[in-house]
Amino acid sequence: MASSEYPASTHTPRYLTGDAAGIREFIDKFDVFLFDCDGVLWSGDHLFPGTNETLELLRSKGKQVVFVTNNSTKSRADYVKKLDGLGIPSTTEEIFSSSYSASIYISRILSLPPNKRKVFVIGETGIEQELRAENVPFLGGTDPTYRREITPEDYKKIAAGDPSLLDPEVGVVLVGLDFHVNYLKLALAFHYIRRGAVFLATNIDSTLPNAGTLFPGAGSMSAPLIMMLGGQEPVSLGKPNQAMMDAIEGKFRFDRERACMVGDRANTDIRFGVEGKLGGTLAVLTGVSSEEDFLRGEVRPAAYLDRLADLLGCE
Amino acid sequence: MASSEYPASTHTPRYLTGDAAGIREFIDKFDVFLFDCDGVLWSGDHLFPGTNETLELLRSKGKQVVFVTNNSTKSRADYVKKLDGLGIPSTTEEIFSSSYSASIYISRILSLPPNKRKVFVIGETGIEQELRAENVPFLGGTDPTYRREITPEDYKKIAAGDPSLLDPEVGVVLVGLDFHVNYLKLALAFHYIRRGAVFLATNIDSTLPNAGTLFPGAGSMSAPLIMMLGGQEPVSLGKPNQAMMDAIEGKFRFDRERACMVGDRANTDIRFGVEGKLGGTLAVLTGVSSEEDFLRGEVRPAAYLDRLADLLGCE
Repeated sequence: MASSEYPASTHTPRYLTGDAAGIREFIDKFDVFLFDCDGVLWSGDHLFPGTNETLELLRSKGKQVVFVTNNSTKSRADYVKKLDGLGIPSTTEEIFSSSYSASIYISRILSLPPNKRKVFVIGETGIEQELRAENVPFLGGTDPTYRREITPEDYKKIAAGDPSLLDPEVGVVLVGLDFHVNYLKLALAFHYIRRGAVFLATNIDSTLPNAGTLFPGAGSMSAPLIMMLGGQEPVSLGKPNQAMMDAIEGKFRFDRERACMVGDRANTDIRFGVEGKLGGTLAVLTGVSSEEDFLRGEVRPAAYLDRLADLLGCE
Repeated sequence: MASSEYPASTHTPRYLTGDAAGIREFIDKFDVFLFDCDGVLWSGDHLFPGTNETLELLRSKGKQVVFVTNNSTKSRADYVKKLDGLGIPSTTEEIFSSSYSASIYISRILSLPPNKRKVFVIGETGIEQELRAENVPFLGGTDPTYRREITPEDYKKIAAGDPSLLDPEVGVVLVGLDFHVNYLKLALAFHYIRRGAVFLATNIDSTLPNAGTLFPGAGSMSAPLIMMLGGQEPVSLGKPNQAMMDAIEGKFRFDRERACMVGDRANTDIRFGVEGKLGGTLAVLTGVSSEEDFLRGEVRPAAYLDRLADLLGCE
C-alpha cells in the first residue's frame, strides 16, 4: 500500500519508558496486541531480557497476544517450536505467519473455479504445511521433481503447454522465500501466470536478516517474475499489506479500535498498524528504526519505548 | 538509456522493398552493417531464405558485417559454430556478443586497482571464455562449487566476510543469463556489491525467446539484486545500452556516420542505432515489431523492408 494513501503523521509519539501511569493507561486501551517478533521480542538468536515477563503480564490482564511474522518458510507449528527454543511459550493459535495468511486468502477469499484450484508454489515447507491444513492442492514447492536443471525437453513442453509439465488446473502461483529457487521454477511460474493464474506472494521483503547480515528475501523470488511480466506485481499477503490485516481480523474477529500493533520498523510494522486503522501502534528502539525515525518520520507510532520490557514498569 | 534522452522521431521511414534505386542509394551510404540476428537473419532454428545471399552481396561490395547479439551464454567462437550450423559462414572477428562486450569493458575501460581485479560471475561458459581471452581472473560462473544449496556455515562465513567464501580481490560482479542461478550465488553477488564491487550486467533483457515462447532472460538474474540493493541498477553492456556501441566502435574503429544498424525491434535494435548516432537504421518486418511500430512509434528507423533478403532487389 502506497505511503501516500494516508496523510503523513504530524503528532509527537508519546514516550512511555518510566511513565507507569502512561503505560497502564495505554495497555488498558487494548484487548489485542499484535507483535512483530525479530527486533521486538528478540534479535537473531538472542531473546531480549524481560520478553517473557512482558508477554505474561499482558496475558494476565486478559489481552490476546498474536505473533505476526512475514517468515513463510516456517508453518505456525514450526514457529511455536522456534519460540519454544527461544524460551517463549506460545500456541499455534497465537501465530500469524505470511504462509498461513496466504493459505487462508486462497482457500477462503479467492473464488477459484473448480478446475483451477491448484497452487504452484515457489517456497519452502512452511507454505506447503499451511496449504495442506486448508486442503488446498499444490505442486512445486519442495518437490524434488522441480529441483533440477531445465532440459531441452522442458522448453518444448512448456512452449506446447504440455499438461505433464504445466498442470491445467493451476489457478494460483504463490511465491515465498525459496532457498532452492531455480530457472525451471521461475520459467514455470511465469508461464502459469501468463496462462491466467493469480500471482500471489507471501511477502515482498527484499532481504532476510540472518547471522547479523542480509540475505535474499521473498521479494527477490518475485522480482524476476515482475520483470518478465512487464511490471505486474503480486498481491502480497504479508506485512505491511492490508490483505494480511484483513486475514488476521477474519480469524480473531477483534475490534480494530481495541488492537495495537507493536514493532521496531516504522515503514512496515507501524505502517501496517496505521493503515489498518488500529486503535494504537507501539514502537520499540531495539530493532531497525531509530527514535528520530519515530519522532520525525512520515509514519509515526502512537507511543514508543526504549525496549518492550519497559511495559513492566507499569507496576 | 532513457527514451526521453532523444526527441521522439517524427519522420516517415522509407519503404525500400521493391525500390532498386532506393536500396542501392541506401547501401552506398554505409561501410559497416551491424546485424541483430534472431528475427532478422533467422527465427529460432529457421534460417530465412536469402540471408546468405544478402550477406554475400554486402561483403562483395566491401561492407564490414558485424553480428551483434545480447546472448551471453555463448562465446564468439560458440557463435561462429551456431551460425555455421544455420548455414551462415562467419568469422570470430565478425561477432560482437554481450559477453565479449562486458569482457572488453572490464579489461580495457574499467580501471580496477591491482588487488580488485577478480570478477564474480553469474552466468554460463560464454562469459567465462571471453573473460579468459582478456586475461581477466574470475570465479563463480559454471564452477560446480557454487552449484549447491546454501548451508548454515555459508551464512556465518558471509556475515563474517570469510575470505574462503568472499574473495577480497573481487572488484566486479558480472551478471548474465545463468541457467543454474541459485540462492547462494545471489547471496554472494549481493555481498560483493555491498562491499564495493562494480555491478555489471551483460544485458538486461527480461526474457529469452526459445522454442517459440519466452523464458527468463539475463535481466531476471539482475532483478533480485537490484531489489536487494534498493534500486541500484547494473551497468549493462548489451543492446540498447551505448556502452556496447562504444565497445563496438572501439574494436572496429568505424565512422558512425557510415554505419547502419539492422534489426527487427524498435525499442532495442533501432533505438541502439539511433541513440548511437549511427548514419542509418534499417528495420525488417520478420521479427517482433510491426510496420505500425516503425511508422508511428517513438523510435523509427531511417528505412524498412518486408524482409532482409529484399536488399537483393537492388540488382
